[in-house]
Amino acid sequence: MSLHLENIKEEFKPIFYPDSIAVVGASNNERKIGTLFLKNLLRSGFPGKLYPVNRGGGNILGLKAYPNIRDIPDPVEYVIVSIPRAFVLDLLDDCAVKGVKIVHFFTAGFSESGEKEGARIEEEMVRKARRGGFRIIGPNSAGIYSPAVNIPFAPDGVLGEAGSTAFISQSGSLGVRIILSGIACGLHFSKGVSFGNGSDIDSLDFLEYFAQDPETELIGFYVEGLKKGRRFFRLVKEISNEMPIVVWKGGVTEAGAEAAFSHTAALAGSVPIWRAVLKQAGAVGVESLEEFVDTLLAFQHLPFLGGRGVTIVNGLVIGGGGESVTAADTFINFGFEVVPFSDEVKRNLDVLLGQVGTILRNPLDLNAAYGNVELIYRVLKTVSTDPKVHLIIIQENIDILLANGIKEVGSFFLRLVQNLSKPVVVVLEQGSAEAERLAAVKELSKAKIAVFPNLERAAKAIANVNYYFENKGSGLHLLSHRS
Amino acid sequence: MSLHLENIKEEFKPIFYPDSIAVVGASNNERKIGTLFLKNLLRSGFPGKLYPVNRGGGNILGLKAYPNIRDIPDPVEYVIVSIPRAFVLDLLDDCAVKGVKIVHFFTAGFSESGEKEGARIEEEMVRKARRGGFRIIGPNSAGIYSPAVNIPFAPDGVLGEAGSTAFISQSGSLGVRIILSGIACGLHFSKGVSFGNGSDIDSLDFLEYFAQDPETELIGFYVEGLKKGRRFFRLVKEISNEMPIVVWKGGVTEAGAEAAFSHTAALAGSVPIWRAVLKQAGAVGVESLEEFVDTLLAFQHLPFLGGRGVTIVNGLVIGGGGESVTAADTFINFGFEVVPFSDEVKRNLDVLLGQVGTILRNPLDLNAAYGNVELIYRVLKTVSTDPKVHLIIIQENIDILLANGIKEVGSFFLRLVQNLSKPVVVVLEQGSAEAERLAAVKELSKAKIAVFPNLERAAKAIANVNYYFENKGSGLHLLSHRS
Repeated sequence: MSLHLENIKEEFKPIFYPDSIAVVGASNNERKIGTLFLKNLLRSGFPGKLYPVNRGGGNILGLKAYPNIRDIPDPVEYVIVSIPRAFVLDLLDDCAVKGVKIVHFFTAGFSESGEKEGARIEEEMVRKARRGGFRIIGPNSAGIYSPAVNIPFAPDGVLGEAGSTAFISQSGSLGVRIILSGIACGLHFSKGVSFGNGSDIDSLDFLEYFAQDPETELIGFYVEGLKKGRRFFRLVKEISNEMPIVVWKGGVTEAGAEAAFSHTAALAGSVPIWRAVLKQAGAVGVESLEEFVDTLLAFQHLPFLGGRGVTIVNGLVIGGGGESVTAADTFINFGFEVVPFSDEVKRNLDVLLGQVGTILRNPLDLNAAYGNVELIYRVLKTVSTDPKVHLIIIQENIDILLANGIKEVGSFFLRLVQNLSKPVVVVLEQGSAEAERLAAVKELSKAKIAVFPNLERAAKAIANVNYYFENKGSGLHLLSHRS
Repeated sequence: MSLHLENIKEEFKPIFYPDSIAVVGASNNERKIGTLFLKNLLRSGFPGKLYPVNRGGGNILGLKAYPNIRDIPDPVEYVIVSIPRAFVLDLLDDCAVKGVKIVHFFTAGFSESGEKEGARIEEEMVRKARRGGFRIIGPNSAGIYSPAVNIPFAPDGVLGEAGSTAFISQSGSLGVRIILSGIACGLHFSKGVSFGNGSDIDSLDFLEYFAQDPETELIGFYVEGLKKGRRFFRLVKEISNEMPIVVWKGGVTEAGAEAAFSHTAALAGSVPIWRAVLKQAGAVGVESLEEFVDTLLAFQHLPFLGGRGVTIVNGLVIGGGGESVTAADTFINFGFEVVPFSDEVKRNLDVLLGQVGTILRNPLDLNAAYGNVELIYRVLKTVSTDPKVHLIIIQENIDILLANGIKEVGSFFLRLVQNLSKPVVVVLEQGSAEAERLAAVKELSKAKIAVFPNLERAAKAIANVNYYFENKGSGLHLLSHRS
């Protein structure tokens, strides 16, 4: 990929892998944002050096505090700032003297406030950064997320396992929600950022970096509006040839767009324009937090399916007639084909299951299997031989499994998905035993199996994956744009 | 309402309030369906008499077992049957002699099997019931659900709290899922049934009964196909003028319809026909288990809103900018109006919140409230005075609440919704702390507050409630049908 920042990997290293972090504005007041940032870095086990900076000096959370960043005896790479606006320009002069590399401003009240003075100071900040040889994240930014080196996200300090999905969120609080939902469903992030006002480093710089990051294989982008539409289009198009970009556009309705303008001063653009741009650029557009997270999860675990034929297997314990009916509806509504089984597969299923209480068609209601894991496995092996089947969906409800003696739900499904020749997705429906469900999701996620809480979310997410691969590099998205 | 069965309430009383139940086919084999039914009735505390019937006699689960139903010394009102098909006709002769009122056949292998012999026996069963003066539920039926007298549903034995929503499900296993999902979200059922083949009492008889049941205020109906389309239309139209009927139609796609035919031999009807019929009859059509349960929940707790104006309040703890943007998108996409606040409301909000860090528009990002429950309450009081606001939606994530010291999540929201002059819905988003979330949902449900796990599900469900009330009795549904 020929992207225009040659040295972006080197330049962004101190953002996601800093040797040392100073927190300006940390204090012994537990409710201060700076204190929260510092506390979370300590708690999460950030392996580098940490320096509280507070005019009063003294001791903060067991660490020696320095009255000024210049007083820190060792080099400082990354600075987190949460102090009133009035002090930020002086701080940047100190940062220049100290030779820091990155300054992240949580502090708000700049261009996004709509006030002239705020916008003026923001411009001056960027000038100081250019002159001082460092870069700025924000202002008005929740900051970065780097689980590989235990840097949690935002003052809330959310931290999950490290993985291969990067996210960029124009909203800090949605960033928190993206990580929380991700943790719950087994989605693991390589890196993340909420770029705030993007005065210096903006969303597209992060996009460009993530595309080159060896830890990242997939990018999720929550955007309210962009200052540089052309660069966005060119970048997304280029990156989409290499890895999927899932874009959730906030502010697609008039009221949403108004809220977006107040939120980050972003011009939202019209819905039809956005849709056309995303489609032509080869990005995958989504419309809710759930679809965003689900789609990333599906990309994380599924390969290119090579077709739209699915088989749905349910009633693993005690009857799934209605589930078969509605499962077929759901997947077909999202563009899949619930293909008829080949005669050979039907013959083999008949041997395995007999016809009593079981309907030997796709969706396959196992009715008579009563949780017999070896029998179900042989059934899955059989349907996976059908050349028209590109994906197997196994569906059951957590409460029904538990009530029928299947207590090790994760192991149960792991046994079922072993060495199948087709990709598998598990729909483990929610009931009342959510803790057990989440434990099973975690276990399956480690084995690279995507688990969804219901059929609709599964179908929507997998359809998005299919859409991407069907259009990738084939020029098909250009055709469909013209149509 | 003038429905054609005058004495239906009296006739159906032994179905949902039986004095005594005999279980034919219970044994000391724990895996037998009859044993499961008996065990669940014992465990749930059914207050009436219970009689195992087993050719071997003896003692089953601590109860004296009778070789034949006629051997039971006391009267028997309700009989649950799970014995092979070959024995059912003789059993019905015994039932006639015994003078039972209702016989429920779990046993399958009749008309739904497609075999002539099965269909012939089923017809003969109905003739025997007519002659014997009793009624049949099923065959191929999971049975009834009557939480008021601790009758759990299906051999799985699902039992939740009693409430005011009745359900009818053509699928037994979906019936189980409906109850499980209902329990998790605070939906409480008055009664329920899966009618199986409906050889004698069919779905529409139950529909008619539920419409007259004093415990029922709302009906949910999962249907794959109907034998009597005209009666369905007439009944639904009549009942819809009195109470909402939520209809989830399975088998709307070709593959779904094929599966439905195998499942219950039901002719599914085409999608456009179904949509038109439901609309003209004033029913609320839904398309997934989640939408079905969510819509029933919204009906259970919400009155007629009188308009589509909503306000969304979020960022209760620590910032909700992105949530505001996407919340507006979601509700507008479902036909709501995210109305601008009146000048008076804006002035009052300004006094309460000031403008720093808070955007005084709808959706209202409370950013600066930091979980201050009294401040948030005053804000809700203020926005509820806006004449354009018909519904208030409060949105927060469970993990964010807990991480910020709000441990009593149920109490927190209960304090917020007290004595507001407008209806309120809570969107309590899922994170990792699902047990705490479900506990809060339960607490709020007792206070008649509907809680949804995300904005999209909330918006869809509430839009369905609005649709019903906007069209109810007004003739508007006829107009929209013509358009």
